[in-house]
Amino acid sequence: MTTESPENTVNPETAVDGVTDETAAPRSRAQRRRDTEHRLATDVDVWVATASQEGVPYLVPLSFAWDGTALLVATPAGSPTGRNLAASGTVRLALGPTRDVTMIEGRVEYLEMADLPADERAAFAARTGFDPAASTTRYRWYRITPLRIQAWREADELSGRELMRDGAWLA
Amino acid sequence: MTTESPENTVNPETAVDGVTDETAAPRSRAQRRRDTEHRLATDVDVWVATASQEGVPYLVPLSFAWDGTALLVATPAGSPTGRNLAASGTVRLALGPTRDVTMIEGRVEYLEMADLPADERAAFAARTGFDPAASTTRYRWYRITPLRIQAWREADELSGRELMRDGAWLA
Repeated sequence: MTTESPENTVNPETAVDGVTDETAAPRSRAQRRRDTEHRLATDVDVWVATASQEGVPYLVPLSFAWDGTALLVATPAGSPTGRNLAASGTVRLALGPTRDVTMIEGRVEYLEMADLPADERAAFAARTGFDPAASTTRYRWYRITPLRIQAWREADELSGRELMRDGAWLA
Repeated sequence: MTTESPENTVNPETAVDGVTDETAAPRSRAQRRRDTEHRLATDVDVWVATASQEGVPYLVPLSFAWDGTALLVATPAGSPTGRNLAASGTVRLALGPTRDVTMIEGRVEYLEMADLPADERAAFAARTGFDPAASTTRYRWYRITPLRIQAWREADELSGRELMRDGAWLA
């Protein structure tokens, strides 16, 4: 989906937000997977990057739930993100702050509000405090299955950042 | 560039990261502009969302500088972000955490490393701790001029979130 070209991420020398312990060694792949799964299980918000068919980028923060396999988000069917997700079936997500990121490329399926099992709707509302099915605006559910996951903090963690490929964990 | 369709942002009821004072009234537009300009002047990292011509979204955090008019970022010319920025000339940026965001749509011009004035290169290196012109990888500069800016914390700030349109501040 994307190339392996090097990308300048944030500056390697400066710690920000107190997230970086400069004395720490780069995390192992197994540790990064644990950290990523913890974040998937407990974070409430995720950055959602999409693109229109014409190649116009879009980005918003959305609340999400995680069932161990896929992320679940909800947004109005007519919003830029909703339209892009439905039309392209692809998304790039970011969890965490800029110096401690998990990046996820995923495949997207959408569901109308009434088509999600009641227990999943309840789990989403419990986690996020928001029940989109109760809104007067027409929302849809978007189920995002990760295909590729990377996690890194600073430049010393760019090596070994690949945690999942083609939907399979590497560690 | 995008429609005004409503977008579910993050859940309005829950405060995250300690950024939201639930007793606070929604900020005025003038206050949001001050907060946004402060962030542009002092933050080091920005989320950079781009899209390929084929409509594949990309997202990375990059360090940036701000000269009062435009953001300056640097990334390898051959990276996904570098290629997308050069080909499309458009970008969507996010500053701040998910419950206190500034979203920026901008026009992009790129420069080869040698074509940036020396004082701007020095200012970038001083702010970010990183001098891309010294890298063995071929970087480019990307100058991003904001055309549209929005800022909000929670749902009660969605009204009044528009701070700039067509490159002109609204307050």
